[in-house]
Amino acid sequence: MNGEFRETLETFENQYPGRDYTIEIVCPEFTSVCPKTGQPDFGTLSFTYVPEARCIELKSLKLYLQQFRNEGVFYENVTNRILDDFVAVVAPRRVRLVAAFTARGGIVTTVTAQFEAGR
Amino acid sequence: MNGEFRETLETFENQYPGRDYTIEIVCPEFTSVCPKTGQPDFGTLSFTYVPEARCIELKSLKLYLQQFRNEGVFYENVTNRILDDFVAVVAPRRVRLVAAFTARGGIVTTVTAQFEAGR
Amino acid sequence: MNGEFRETLETFENQYPGRDYTIEIVCPEFTSVCPKTGQPDFGTLSFTYVPEARCIELKSLKLYLQQFRNEGVFYENVTNRILDDFVAVVAPRRVRLVAAFTARGGIVTTVTAQFEAGR
Amino acid sequence: MNGEFRETLETFENQYPGRDYTIEIVCPEFTSVCPKTGQPDFGTLSFTYVPEARCIELKSLKLYLQQFRNEGVFYENVTNRILDDFVAVVAPRRVRLVAAFTARGGIVTTVTAQFEAGR
Amino acid sequence: MNGEFRETLETFENQYPGRDYTIEIVCPEFTSVCPKTGQPDFGTLSFTYVPEARCIELKSLKLYLQQFRNEGVFYENVTNRILDDFVAVVAPRRVRLVAAFTARGGIVTTVTAQFEAGR
Amino acid sequence: MNGEFRETLETFENQYPGRDYTIEIVCPEFTSVCPKTGQPDFGTLSFTYVPEARCIELKSLKLYLQQFRNEGVFYENVTNRILDDFVAVVAPRRVRLVAAFTARGGIVTTVTAQFEAGR
Amino acid sequence: MNGEFRETLETFENQYPGRDYTIEIVCPEFTSVCPKTGQPDFGTLSFTYVPEARCIELKSLKLYLQQFRNEGVFYENVTNRILDDFVAVVAPRRVRLVAAFTARGGIVTTVTAQFEAGR
Amino acid sequence: MNGEFRETLETFENQYPGRDYTIEIVCPEFTSVCPKTGQPDFGTLSFTYVPEARCIELKSLKLYLQQFRNEGVFYENVTNRILDDFVAVVAPRRVRLVAAFTARGGIVTTVTAQFEAGR
Amino acid sequence: MNGEFRETLETFENQYPGRDYTIEIVCPEFTSVCPKTGQPDFGTLSFTYVPEARCIELKSLKLYLQQFRNEGVFYENVTNRILDDFVAVVAPRRVRLVAAFTARGGIVTTVTAQFEAGR
Amino acid sequence: MNGEFRETLETFENQYPGRDYTIEIVCPEFTSVCPKTGQPDFGTLSFTYVPEARCIELKSLKLYLQQFRNEGVFYENVTNRILDDFVAVVAPRRVRLVAAFTARGGIVTTVTAQFEAGR
Repeated sequence: MNGEFRETLETFENQYPGRDYTIEIVCPEFTSVCPKTGQPDFGTLSFTYVPEARCIELKSLKLYLQQFRNEGVFYENVTNRILDDFVAVVAPRRVRLVAAFTARGGIVTTVTAQFEAGR
Repeated sequence: MNGEFRETLETFENQYPGRDYTIEIVCPEFTSVCPKTGQPDFGTLSFTYVPEARCIELKSLKLYLQQFRNEGVFYENVTNRILDDFVAVVAPRRVRLVAAFTARGGIVTTVTAQFEAGR
Repeated sequence: MNGEFRETLETFENQYPGRDYTIEIVCPEFTSVCPKTGQPDFGTLSFTYVPEARCIELKSLKLYLQQFRNEGVFYENVTNRILDDFVAVVAPRRVRLVAAFTARGGIVTTVTAQFEAGR
Repeated sequence: MNGEFRETLETFENQYPGRDYTIEIVCPEFTSVCPKTGQPDFGTLSFTYVPEARCIELKSLKLYLQQFRNEGVFYENVTNRILDDFVAVVAPRRVRLVAAFTARGGIVTTVTAQFEAGR
Repeated sequence: MNGEFRETLETFENQYPGRDYTIEIVCPEFTSVCPKTGQPDFGTLSFTYVPEARCIELKSLKLYLQQFRNEGVFYENVTNRILDDFVAVVAPRRVRLVAAFTARGGIVTTVTAQFEAGR
Repeated sequence: MNGEFRETLETFENQYPGRDYTIEIVCPEFTSVCPKTGQPDFGTLSFTYVPEARCIELKSLKLYLQQFRNEGVFYENVTNRILDDFVAVVAPRRVRLVAAFTARGGIVTTVTAQFEAGR
Repeated sequence: MNGEFRETLETFENQYPGRDYTIEIVCPEFTSVCPKTGQPDFGTLSFTYVPEARCIELKSLKLYLQQFRNEGVFYENVTNRILDDFVAVVAPRRVRLVAAFTARGGIVTTVTAQFEAGR
Repeated sequence: MNGEFRETLETFENQYPGRDYTIEIVCPEFTSVCPKTGQPDFGTLSFTYVPEARCIELKSLKLYLQQFRNEGVFYENVTNRILDDFVAVVAPRRVRLVAAFTARGGIVTTVTAQFEAGR
Repeated sequence: MNGEFRETLETFENQYPGRDYTIEIVCPEFTSVCPKTGQPDFGTLSFTYVPEARCIELKSLKLYLQQFRNEGVFYENVTNRILDDFVAVVAPRRVRLVAAFTARGGIVTTVTAQFEAGR
Repeated sequence: MNGEFRETLETFENQYPGRDYTIEIVCPEFTSVCPKTGQPDFGTLSFTYVPEARCIELKSLKLYLQQFRNEGVFYENVTNRILDDFVAVVAPRRVRLVAAFTARGGIVTTVTAQFEAGR
């Protein structure tokens, strides 16, 4: 199922592969569903990456994230799964994903995962 | 007595043990009682940890912290005691606990303690 | 039981009864318990009143509010009940109580009630 | 269809009907779908009402609003429709609903509607 | 020329004409050109209106405002001209337009104009 | 004793007595002593007045307020006493004094008193 | 001398005299000199006016205010004097001037004066 | 075409070449056009550089950036292209360019690129 | 005289000497007197320390700081003197004191001093 | 001319030369004149230094900076020149000067320069 979702992601050619530069993309309107309670979860996903040969196409990233709208996933897992999809499709030099979820039961959770090529 | 409290904490299996990733949990509604004056204390506890085999289950953490509601404990001791309980049950690679208490006598106190496995 | 709580409230003589002046008191550390779920509630209570013959003594107000720490009460009822106690003991010309509770299930609730003498 | 949604709303008896007091409820996690583009919309709904015989039950309000998650509705219409449902079920003395939606095409929209009994 | 610009504006039928409700639309990305210096101006336009029979269609408003991108107009005139266009096309019960421009020569200017039907 | 303090206050002639204009003076460094506990109190005093024949001289106001540094006075009384001194010396058309004190026992208090000539 | 300064102010014709609209101009970089101590004063001047036949030209307002750079004037007087100059040259329907000066001796002063035609 | 734009940039001699010091220039009013949709883009460009023999002349930088007003360019490319122009004309010891664009489709993008002489 | 002041400071035993943890104490209500002008000074003192065998008792720290209320001392000296007293009584592994004073003559001063055992 | 200005700066003996401590001085009311346009410039100067044998006397620093009020100097040069004066008179172990100027033509500039003894 994971593989199906990532097919939505599209990329375009990095015009400046000779330079190590950083692209930060903040998506404040992420929502999925708690697999335990069926209640909706809300969060902000921030990708910070250094492109290699390809850059992520923004509209396709938006459509990719919208697929999680009615998907039941835990905070920790959805963060790692999205990072895996991003790495598989974009193959960046480095990428960090920070997923900051809104309060549940008065408790706020943020999950941060990263990938670095050749490590 | 310390041991009794920590029995409330529950964990679930870390699905991504191969990756060093960080989970930050902020609990702004912590309250205990000053052992000297009997007055209530209020604070925000922030856990930042890298899981090994287990992750903390959020609802159990909330119930664990609620046990301190009528418990008489000093700032410095409650911070270290909660860190000890977290380490004993979750056994993370690394964890830092920041306990920021509200003003008493016009003075604000924050206690920060950390643990790193294999150190 | 309501009557018992209010016995904690103390007042002192208003030294300037000839002038219509306003006293605002903000108590950000109110906590009680939800009668349905047993979960703790947290809120900020703000009293704004014009004294007649008596002013509220601050320390007694603090101790009065601490009595709700383990009391099971709904938001709407606790606000009206505290306003009733304040009016019964202080007998102000006017008083407004704003009770702003923290988020529960992602929803924030604020209850506002007022009293005016001779209305 | 409108009628079906409102059946989720529950109320409880107002214990202080003799007093004109105000309850403000802020729900920052509202989401629906644009009927034109199929894209998700996000917003914060704020209800401010003076109860008559009944108060709204918070959990039922939350579940009622979650029904719009996959519903296609325009900003202006969803605000008026929710106000109608609230009035039909709670029958308050007065109620104002402010629906503040996040930016679309760089433009932020807020719709405000109100109802007063006997007008 | 004024007339040409306003042809871009589109409306849709107000589904709740029986209720006096308010729609606020904030457009933070307005830009035009100073007719004196040729330098670009930047501002935020906020429309607050009560619809009669028609509501403004958001995308058409965005395209309408983009027509000013290379248009030479003074702050005071552009605000009044846009209000005139809005009134001519939407025919609202009431509308207020606040145009807040960014600093020029260290000076910040905001122009506010309003219209009320039947006055 | 009250009278002695006010002798420090100096005024200068209002050059624009024909116009009703407002002068706001904010003094964030007020400190006195609690007469009950001997502990220092801290607050911000804000005067907003419309002058008649005289304006307050700022440096003399500063020196006047410094006299309270080691004076034991309650919040409610010090506010009214300072207002009385201001009115006695400056004789303004209108004056409002807002005294916002810092938290004591987690509780913040603000006292507001006003005077209007000929009332 | 007052008259000389105001000769710098220029106006342009109000294109919309049939509408009562408001222009707010905020100048955060005003500076003059204290006539008593010779020390520089700094403040923000905010003009809010409804034009009659003429609007103020912004660049001339900026140059007019720069003339006070080395001028010795008291807060209260400079505010009233600038309002007089503005009224003499622009002849607006209404104008309010708020002059907010930075702290001196830990004390912040704001002077507000207004004019309304035909009063 | 790239070369034409950079001809607008002017420099002046660095008077303190013996010292490694930093100049930060923030331009919050950058606008270009999306080459795909034709819609305007808005952003804030921040240059932080250590000069070698020359410093950038601010007015020429402003005019240089205004050339992009009707230019169709992607976020990633415009950032790198502007950095290239800056390096070609100013030849600094080090320079970092942060380009923070406003939200599109609810997504905020920031591109950061840097150059260091002799690397 | 220095020695007399520090006798007020009390400590309690560190229950977790085996762990290197940090205690931050912020005291926003410090006041002393300028030895040159006799004018009161105000500031916020922040202690950040790692305890060895003893922790500072908060109430004694508050009383210790209150002794400076009518003491004439310069910013730079009072900061170093308080750090010396803290080190003499608490003997921490490390301590940093940040003393941030409010504006005088439009100028804000902050003094930071630190101590590390065994250096 | 540079030398004349610095004669205003005065110092006093550092009472704690044995400790490496930091003094930060923020002066938000700096103003000079643009040598090109004659227009006034405004900025905030922040000095952060570690004293050797002498500390800067604050009032003399204020008077020193006021000398630039009608002086025509570029941003980059005035920052370096003031740093040179500070080093010549105070001879600190280390000093950093951050000069943050307000917007000109919509562009904000900050210049940062530093000195370290023995480098």
